[in-house]
Amino acid sequence: MRGEDVFETLTDFCEREGIESAVYSALGAVEKIRLGYYDLASKQYGSKEYQHAHEVASMTGNIALVDEKPFIHMHAVLSDTAPGTENLCVGGHVFAATVAVTLEVHLTVFNEPVTRSHDEGIGLKLLDCPNASL
Amino acid sequence: MRGEDVFETLTDFCEREGIESAVYSALGAVEKIRLGYYDLASKQYGSKEYQHAHEVASMTGNIALVDEKPFIHMHAVLSDTAPGTENLCVGGHVFAATVAVTLEVHLTVFNEPVTRSHDEGIGLKLLDCPNASL
Amino acid sequence: MRGEDVFETLTDFCEREGIESAVYSALGAVEKIRLGYYDLASKQYGSKEYQHAHEVASMTGNIALVDEKPFIHMHAVLSDTAPGTENLCVGGHVFAATVAVTLEVHLTVFNEPVTRSHDEGIGLKLLDCPNASL
Repeated sequence: MRGEDVFETLTDFCEREGIESAVYSALGAVEKIRLGYYDLASKQYGSKEYQHAHEVASMTGNIALVDEKPFIHMHAVLSDTAPGTENLCVGGHVFAATVAVTLEVHLTVFNEPVTRSHDEGIGLKLLDCPNASL
Repeated sequence: MRGEDVFETLTDFCEREGIESAVYSALGAVEKIRLGYYDLASKQYGSKEYQHAHEVASMTGNIALVDEKPFIHMHAVLSDTAPGTENLCVGGHVFAATVAVTLEVHLTVFNEPVTRSHDEGIGLKLLDCPNASL
Repeated sequence: MRGEDVFETLTDFCEREGIESAVYSALGAVEKIRLGYYDLASKQYGSKEYQHAHEVASMTGNIALVDEKPFIHMHAVLSDTAPGTENLCVGGHVFAATVAVTLEVHLTVFNEPVTRSHDEGIGLKLLDCPNASL
């Protein structure tokens, strides 16, 4: 719903519905966005903010347990909706976003929990998975 | 198939197969595209046309019933294939597109119908859903 | 895992697990990328290389049998992570990519095999499918 924090709303929904692990895809529009990328050399995320509304041209991600709570990993492609822009897209790792207009999310919930743990070499919480080579 | 109107073909397919609600993802190439965004302030869509072929870098959306007929909501990220362009992407809400080369669509059909109704505050037909906070 | 060739690893995984047909979605980061598009007029692919790491803003595709072996069709939207870039996205058909940081792939495996065959008119191996109009 318009004005909702995407991460808060999705996390609350997962906790309420007992969803531990899932993948999702969404479309709609968001604003107050923080978009970043991971720099392996420094093991730090860089990021950039976009205050005004962008169309969600693509939004995909997964939900997995970190310390027994659902953690949302989100990547997106956003197109600028300001007059005079050319529908050009920015994208990357989403740190924050607020629903503008609407956001339609489709979750595919897994029967078995997937977890994440910290990886020293990479510096991130990576998915623990039986098919780890993927 | 090449030359087909994407919306007509998908709608016809849904009606023929009795599909009322679904999500989908597609890849391929399209041309004769109209791409837009929703301006909440004016409650109007803006749009821009692209006549020549673009690769479908991402295409996702959903199908829900509006007045008992399947309505296709589509967002996409398209990369320019004209010589000299740099694979830069444009994206947003898709109003129209024609298949160029091919378009491979994967539908995930829902067992229960999902519907859309007009929302006065937003000015659009929004999804009616039991988990409306999403 | 970091440094793995995305196509080799996915193909090996499919062969090991007996996966013949699937769709997938992925997020993470890749480097040593070759990105292209199909030019219907010349029936040839054009392509461009990107050596440094890009965030996988979107990656979708399918796996189908060609000559009885799993063939991976992949499209992606990638955002540049080099300092000073503006998260701008490039996208299209992916010919090659190596995992940078991590790549989280979600496969939806089909029960029935899907195949591809060469289409003279288009010059590509297109999906053979009962609903060919899609």
